Amino acid sequence: MLTVFGSTALDTIRTPTKVLKDVLGGAATFAGISSSFFVNTGLIAGIGKDFPKKYHKILATHLNLDGLSIENGKTFRYDGKYDKTLSSRITLRTELNVLKNFQPIVPEQYRKSQFVYLANNDPDQNIAMIKEFDRVKFSMCDTIEFWISTKREAVIKMFKKVDAVVINDEEAKMITKEFNLIKCAKKIMDWGTKYVIIKKGQHGSLLFFEDVIFPSAGVPIENVVDPTGAGDSFAGAMMGYISNKKKTDLATIKKSTLYGNVMGSFAVQGYGVDGLLQIKKSDIKKRVALYQKMTRF
Amino acid sequence: MLTVFGSTALDTIRTPTKVLKDVLGGAATFAGISSSFFVNTGLIAGIGKDFPKKYHKILATHLNLDGLSIENGKTFRYDGKYDKTLSSRITLRTELNVLKNFQPIVPEQYRKSQFVYLANNDPDQNIAMIKEFDRVKFSMCDTIEFWISTKREAVIKMFKKVDAVVINDEEAKMITKEFNLIKCAKKIMDWGTKYVIIKKGQHGSLLFFEDVIFPSAGVPIENVVDPTGAGDSFAGAMMGYISNKKKTDLATIKKSTLYGNVMGSFAVQGYGVDGLLQIKKSDIKKRVALYQKMTRF
Repeated sequence: MLTVFGSTALDTIRTPTKVLKDVLGGAATFAGISSSFFVNTGLIAGIGKDFPKKYHKILATHLNLDGLSIENGKTFRYDGKYDKTLSSRITLRTELNVLKNFQPIVPEQYRKSQFVYLANNDPDQNIAMIKEFDRVKFSMCDTIEFWISTKREAVIKMFKKVDAVVINDEEAKMITKEFNLIKCAKKIMDWGTKYVIIKKGQHGSLLFFEDVIFPSAGVPIENVVDPTGAGDSFAGAMMGYISNKKKTDLATIKKSTLYGNVMGSFAVQGYGVDGLLQIKKSDIKKRVALYQKMTRF
Repeated sequence: MLTVFGSTALDTIRTPTKVLKDVLGGAATFAGISSSFFVNTGLIAGIGKDFPKKYHKILATHLNLDGLSIENGKTFRYDGKYDKTLSSRITLRTELNVLKNFQPIVPEQYRKSQFVYLANNDPDQNIAMIKEFDRVKFSMCDTIEFWISTKREAVIKMFKKVDAVVINDEEAKMITKEFNLIKCAKKIMDWGTKYVIIKKGQHGSLLFFEDVIFPSAGVPIENVVDPTGAGDSFAGAMMGYISNKKKTDLATIKKSTLYGNVMGSFAVQGYGVDGLLQIKKSDIKKRVALYQKMTRF
């Protein structure tokens, strides 16, 4: 199985075409729903007593929720607004709420997970979390601007503890203080992780391993309505694909980034998690085939 | 043969690592040198009496210069400065000089060109130019922000007159007033051109034809020193490859964008035109093979 540790949130998302109020969101939500198309996924997250039943039901449909703690207090809330081009987002408000003092608990049956994804949590918490798993075959973490600017050293320490780092291009530049993405990746690998995957939004991704670079073009999508969670869906798909194959060779990891691009492309086609909820496994298969065909020359 | 019509300039380029003063530049220079690796290329351009002999010699090594007019006055000059990330450039000064009243002349032996590339010239001048060729099998034009903001209607009219439009992502958004690149391309095709190629710098390109989209990842380059002319080298390589193959089917045009990406990647590795001058045909072959290998999954 795959364990995903990260945030489950109530998001307010302001897009040019629609404003969503307190909808199901969070890095672990997107990553977990995305990975659930490939493998049995267990969630470790904390929510408040105000968490709507209908969202609990969505999570329960896709994920093992033994690691979901319902805490006294309110659910983590995020409020952000996209510009008219949908290419940049500003944060209007972040309320940590129950996440402020959240102590994640790893259910006994998750401990045998060979695959672990640590979403953009506090790096110290991710470092503590990875120690809870003693049969890990492949682990991956993400991070965000907030941790880079407040706990850069801890983020670097976290990178050493995982097999792979998946990170946005802008955040890769920020933490490495480099501008060239190859230089960014080399620096992150020098810090001690084996694989680096730089996410470039609509432009696809770059996978790095030793001297190998695997660039992949993004899946072109015309009807983009809400980019929220696309990067998390990308990471979840990668982990889901790898966990399903139970292989960690380079060819498998390369292929996992294609599934990442494809699941990210579904995510942006719906508001909130709708883009992921609307699809079936056969849709994924179809789009991967289409992507393979369209990029062939 | 291929005819390239566009500017030959003396550029002042300020990069974070080096300032180049009055070096050989211009859209037609980059496009023509790039295409010359694939096909016999004729240049139509105007320079002033101050144009240095050493640069004339470089042009003469790569291009047929029967269409190069040496006018009374000074050569077109451009002065621009990159930011420290090399991802954005501001224009400090543009001196049209001899280009202000330049009347390009098409040499008799160019008139039979089946392949014509119209660089980012005045759209009205490009429209007049294309009429000079009556055996055109494939024509392509580029444009820039300056013409979009001053002569948008003429640019659109120019697009109707060519088989393909090659354009930067930001300029595609500007002229179409769309943000999504698929929407941009559809609008440009609706205006009457068959192929649209959107250049995305380091992120590669998107080729559009009818319902087909061909995304290609950029060639990852670590030692980028000067992005000047990369887009022109891209376009030149496309035209050079197509002219060499003498075919205009979709497979050929798809493949030409790979050569575009590869020649753009050489261009950024040297200052000014040096990136193109340093290479041999065998280097192009090697990098295309490497690119094909690295993007395979």
